[in-house]
Amino acid sequence: MLNTHHYWALPDGISEALPDEAEALEQLRRSLLDLYATWGYRLVMPPLVEFMESLRTGHGTHLDVQTFKLTDQLSGRMMGVRADMTPQIARIDAHKLQTEHPNRLCYMGSVLRTRSIHDGSRSPLQVGAELFGHAGLDSDVEVISLLLETLAHCQVPQPLLDIGHVGIFRTLAREAGMSEQQENDFYDMLVRKSLPEIDAWLAQAKLPAEVSACLQQLPRLNGSVEVLDQAITLFANAHPEVQEALAYLRTLTARITTHFPQCNIHVDLAELSGYDYHTGIVYGIYTPGMGREVARGGRYDGIGEAFGRTRPATGFSTDLRTLATFGLQQTAKPAAIFAPAAQDAALEQLIRKLRGQQQRVIRALEGQAPDPAALGCTQQITQHDGQWRVVAI
Amino acid sequence: MLNTHHYWALPDGISEALPDEAEALEQLRRSLLDLYATWGYRLVMPPLVEFMESLRTGHGTHLDVQTFKLTDQLSGRMMGVRADMTPQIARIDAHKLQTEHPNRLCYMGSVLRTRSIHDGSRSPLQVGAELFGHAGLDSDVEVISLLLETLAHCQVPQPLLDIGHVGIFRTLAREAGMSEQQENDFYDMLVRKSLPEIDAWLAQAKLPAEVSACLQQLPRLNGSVEVLDQAITLFANAHPEVQEALAYLRTLTARITTHFPQCNIHVDLAELSGYDYHTGIVYGIYTPGMGREVARGGRYDGIGEAFGRTRPATGFSTDLRTLATFGLQQTAKPAAIFAPAAQDAALEQLIRKLRGQQQRVIRALEGQAPDPAALGCTQQITQHDGQWRVVAI
Repeated sequence: MLNTHHYWALPDGISEALPDEAEALEQLRRSLLDLYATWGYRLVMPPLVEFMESLRTGHGTHLDVQTFKLTDQLSGRMMGVRADMTPQIARIDAHKLQTEHPNRLCYMGSVLRTRSIHDGSRSPLQVGAELFGHAGLDSDVEVISLLLETLAHCQVPQPLLDIGHVGIFRTLAREAGMSEQQENDFYDMLVRKSLPEIDAWLAQAKLPAEVSACLQQLPRLNGSVEVLDQAITLFANAHPEVQEALAYLRTLTARITTHFPQCNIHVDLAELSGYDYHTGIVYGIYTPGMGREVARGGRYDGIGEAFGRTRPATGFSTDLRTLATFGLQQTAKPAAIFAPAAQDAALEQLIRKLRGQQQRVIRALEGQAPDPAALGCTQQITQHDGQWRVVAI
Repeated sequence: MLNTHHYWALPDGISEALPDEAEALEQLRRSLLDLYATWGYRLVMPPLVEFMESLRTGHGTHLDVQTFKLTDQLSGRMMGVRADMTPQIARIDAHKLQTEHPNRLCYMGSVLRTRSIHDGSRSPLQVGAELFGHAGLDSDVEVISLLLETLAHCQVPQPLLDIGHVGIFRTLAREAGMSEQQENDFYDMLVRKSLPEIDAWLAQAKLPAEVSACLQQLPRLNGSVEVLDQAITLFANAHPEVQEALAYLRTLTARITTHFPQCNIHVDLAELSGYDYHTGIVYGIYTPGMGREVARGGRYDGIGEAFGRTRPATGFSTDLRTLATFGLQQTAKPAAIFAPAAQDAALEQLIRKLRGQQQRVIRALEGQAPDPAALGCTQQITQHDGQWRVVAI
């Protein structure tokens, strides 16, 4: 039996959904896509696989490592199974839907990753929304608002928006004249918030005093939105781009708080997820009791460049299975009606009518002991005086 | 530019759906899953990848060749991207939903194949239904009826059911004492309906006269259901299993005709698709003007065996994109309402209310010339005497 068990065990991080869960996921899928439609976001379905050149464009090596490679037997070229649908949506915006207007797209589908992120699934049911063609507060506010609506719809409790802006560190690194290696090293220390390492690194780097002081403050600037006022004071003499980014974050967080007063905001100027392709704000959503993020998003204005068409872009993505853990899964199981196997035109007609009314009718199969209760039936069709009728069991 | 084009071209046989098509597919997906629910078929979502041992179980080498292989970096074992969801559903029935009762399951999802079948897609959106735990006419009739309902729902014109029974050739081959190689050779000639080859092969094979005569007739027995009466006469002295299979086909086709008089039936005793795993009836659905089949199904009672639990099984599968080509794709495009970018609590409230009523509201973005028509808007929100109102454009 152990050998047989071996056959049907799934790979680590790969899961399937049995009826109760699958039907709850399907309901959630529908309600979220309906929500996105009311905000003007139109559905696209990118392919399961693409040539590697398309999949890795605009993203860094991180996504490349996460992508399963396949040899296309028809072209001999390397394909990848999508590990993230965002670059696919950017490709579609850039080349398939060539509009000069803002373009709102949403998507929902399975992705596959070589390794799990934060101990999660290796095959999330990714769902997200992207707004292309607008660089500025309105589009970032809209996308974050839609994400917060998504979380409210899914009853995610006490969402915490952890937000940063990659432009701040990027500008400081440039002003400091860091080499690519130095920037990578410093990025690594920042992400780990390793204050002693950062202080030691700066002490021996001999950077201009002004920019060195800013870099030293960066990992210390996290907390409630008041951190932004603190940063604006501390960085008063920094490059204008740094000051613009801070002002941007302050206006953005104020607007989010107006619309979603229940959303806690945590500012973290060392929050740099997706640093290799994000260009503006970056954020993650957290909720108490879940060790990993619920959703993630940000601005990535450069992504279309590799496709020959740079468009501003901002979006978020999350995982339907993660969202489904928060309460919406308790859908009432539909009651079913048990129908006999008898072949009779009037019976067929009644069954057809009931199904047409969206009622669930389960037919008996000849030679099987009828056990309506085991099939989840609470009613059955029986014949009285030549008439077929639905009666309680 | 040619180099850029190169990046975003999709591999042959791989397609994506842009908004109009994607939204039509989503509507069709929903209405079919709702239809299956009314027949008592419950949704399952099998994983995108599994270990190869699970994926190929119960199926022959045909599916193995069609499956893209991946090395699981966590276990070092070989995984495959699902090329057909049917064996996955059988595994779920056998091991995850251990019921002694009949079990009705349905599924919908992308599969991936190394090569296209009949010049079709290499990544169909497979949809299907399976009934486990009942061996007999009722379950085969139910599944074929559900398939024909599916086709009627999708407005597939003049469906033709092309049906055979693999038990007939399998029994004759056994009675003839064919070796595996001989059976494969003969199968190959039968599928190609190569009458001269078959006659020559039989002439030199020196089989018992009775079984030789039956094998010679097999590729000639195809046409309307009357072929079955002809076969019953010709095979009157054949093995009882052959006679049972013919009687089964006759009763089955009569029941289908009663319920679906508009469905043309074509009997073909050399129809042996999926011979390596089917055990009873096998069928394909055709429609005028489409060179390949629209759907496919049959009985495969042996499939659970490799999972340690043999259960009778019958089911069909088809492709959502193929079904969507027949008319249902003309869904009315939803009208949208254009809303100004202005930040005003009363405006926010109105937008929220409209979206809550499932209306599509597209927000203007600061700095963009408002062009409601380009965004598909037929109405807009404007302010009159301090009141926000929806007016025609």
